[in-house]
Amino acid sequence: MTENTVTFADIQSAAKMIAPLVFRTPVMTCETINALVGRELFFKCEHLQKVGAFKYRGASHAVARLSAAQKKNGVCTHSSGNHAQALALAAKQQQMPAYILMPETAPRVKVDSVRGYGAEITFCEPTQSAREETARIIVEQTGATFIHPFDNSHVIAGQGTAALELLEEIPDLDAIICPVGGGGLASGTCLAAHGINPDVKIFAAEPEGADDTFRSFQSGERQTVGIPDTIADGLLTSVGELTWPILKQHLSDVLTVDDDQITSAMQLLWSRMKQVVEPSGAVPLAAILNHDLPNDLKKIGVILSGGNIDLNKLTW
Amino acid sequence: MTENTVTFADIQSAAKMIAPLVFRTPVMTCETINALVGRELFFKCEHLQKVGAFKYRGASHAVARLSAAQKKNGVCTHSSGNHAQALALAAKQQQMPAYILMPETAPRVKVDSVRGYGAEITFCEPTQSAREETARIIVEQTGATFIHPFDNSHVIAGQGTAALELLEEIPDLDAIICPVGGGGLASGTCLAAHGINPDVKIFAAEPEGADDTFRSFQSGERQTVGIPDTIADGLLTSVGELTWPILKQHLSDVLTVDDDQITSAMQLLWSRMKQVVEPSGAVPLAAILNHDLPNDLKKIGVILSGGNIDLNKLTW
Repeated sequence: MTENTVTFADIQSAAKMIAPLVFRTPVMTCETINALVGRELFFKCEHLQKVGAFKYRGASHAVARLSAAQKKNGVCTHSSGNHAQALALAAKQQQMPAYILMPETAPRVKVDSVRGYGAEITFCEPTQSAREETARIIVEQTGATFIHPFDNSHVIAGQGTAALELLEEIPDLDAIICPVGGGGLASGTCLAAHGINPDVKIFAAEPEGADDTFRSFQSGERQTVGIPDTIADGLLTSVGELTWPILKQHLSDVLTVDDDQITSAMQLLWSRMKQVVEPSGAVPLAAILNHDLPNDLKKIGVILSGGNIDLNKLTW
Repeated sequence: MTENTVTFADIQSAAKMIAPLVFRTPVMTCETINALVGRELFFKCEHLQKVGAFKYRGASHAVARLSAAQKKNGVCTHSSGNHAQALALAAKQQQMPAYILMPETAPRVKVDSVRGYGAEITFCEPTQSAREETARIIVEQTGATFIHPFDNSHVIAGQGTAALELLEEIPDLDAIICPVGGGGLASGTCLAAHGINPDVKIFAAEPEGADDTFRSFQSGERQTVGIPDTIADGLLTSVGELTWPILKQHLSDVLTVDDDQITSAMQLLWSRMKQVVEPSGAVPLAAILNHDLPNDLKKIGVILSGGNIDLNKLTW
C-alpha cells in the first residue's frame, strides 16, 4: 500500500471514474418490513451490482487506476469470495490476468463464478496468514499488482460510491447501516456519508462469530478475529489497518448479531422483498431487528451488500 | 359473470383506475441470461407487486368496480393462493369482508398471508368442482360477490395492465411470454399487447403436468386438467370459458415445460438475477430455455408473475 489516506474527494473521483463500469443499483423499500421495525428503511441493492456484490465498485476502481505497465502483469488477491469475483471480472474486462487465492472453504458458487471469469485460482487454508503468505509468493512470481480486498485506498474509495448514490437518492437519511468484515465498505460508507452530511449516524453490523470490529470499538484498539464461526462468509476477516482508524473516527456503534438472527433477517428479505441476499448482506437488517436503535432514527439506509449464496446449501 | 367481453379500452380504463392502488413494477434485464438465450429478455417484475404477484392488479380492479351495496357484503373467491392473497388485501383496503376458499394443499406461506390480511378462510378439496360448490354455498350465506380468479372481465382487464406497462417501457418488443393457468394474465396480456401493436407475438407457457391450454390450442377446443401434477402451484386450474376464446384468437403458441425445467429456470432467476420467483413465475423462462423460438424474436418481454414460495419447502 503506497497511500494511506482516503478523502471524500477520492470517493467523488472514484464515482466519476467507475460510472461507466458499474450498475447504479436501485434503492428498494418494503412496507411490511417498515411496519415491522417502525422505521422507514431504504435498501441499497448491491446484491444487484455486477458479480452480485458491492465489491465490484472497489475492484473496478482499483484496476482502472493501474498504470499501463501494471495492467500488463495483471492483478492478484486473496478473498473469501465476492472480492475475488469482482477482481476477476474487472481484470477480464481490461484483458489482464487475475490470480486469485481462495480459502478451501469458499462456497462453490463463488469458486465457479471466479473460474468463469477466467481467473487463475489457487486454494489455501482459511486463515489470514496463509492467504497473505501465498499471495506474496504469487506476486513475486508473476509481477502482478496485489489488490487487497479492503486495505487499499482505491478499493475503499470505490466501495464508498454505494453510499454516495444512496444519499443522492434519499438525502434526508438519519442513519446508514452496513456490514463490516475487513471494513472496506464500512469505511467508504463513513467517508462518503459524512462528506455529504456530518450528522448522518453510521452503524456497522457484524456477526458475533467474527466480532473483531465490535471488540475494537469497545477497547479503542484494533482487534483481530481468531477462528471465525458464522454463516456470514463474507465477513470472516479482521478489520484492516487502513480501515480501522476511519471506522473508529466515524462510527456511532458496532452492532453484533448471531447466526439465527442473520438467517431470520435473510428469510425476511427473501420472502417479503423477494430479494436473494446472502447471509453477510442480511447482517444489517438483523441488527436493526435485534437492537434498540435510538427512536429519532426514522429513515435508515441499509446496504444489502451481496447476493451470492449456494442455493444447494440452504440450511433451512 | 354478467359481462363476457373484454376490450383494449377496458384495460386502459383499468390501468387508470388501479394506478393509485398497485405498484408500477420495474422491468429488469440480466446480461448473463441474455447471453445464455441469445436474445434480449425484459422481465416484468410482478413478483414485486403487492402481495407478491400480478393477481393484485385484477383483484383490486374487480373490488374497485363494486357498487356501494356490494362492498357492504364483501367478496368471496376460491384460489390456490395468489388470487386469494390479492383479494384479501384488496378487500381489507376497502374495509370489506373477504371469504376465501383454499385447497387443503395450498402452500403454508400463502395460507398465512391470506389470514394475515384478515380474510376468513375455508379449506376444501383441491378440485375445481369442490371449490366451486363450496363457494356457491358461502355466497348464498353471506351475500358476498364472487370474484372469480380469472373468468371475470374486470379481473382480466386488471391483469392486462402489466403488459400495458411493459410495452410502455419497452415499446419495440417482438414477443411477450407469460404463464397460463386459468388464463386471466395470458388473456389480459393478449388484449393489452395487441391493442398497442398487433404484430407482437404472444406465447403462453404451461407446465406439462397441467397442460390443458396446450391441448386446447392443439385441438381448437377448450380442454380441462384432470388431476394436475406440477410444482407450479399457481397454474393448476383449467383455462376458463371467458379466457379461452381470447387466447385462441391471439396466441402464437403454447409451450410446455416439465418440473425439472421449471426448477432450473427458477434457480437461474434466483442465482443470477437474485430474484425470488415462484415456480409458476419461472415457467416462461423455462419455455424460452427449452424451446426453439423463431430467430427473429430478438426482444422478448417475460412476465415474472409471482414470488410467493414456501422457503422451508425448497426441493433442491
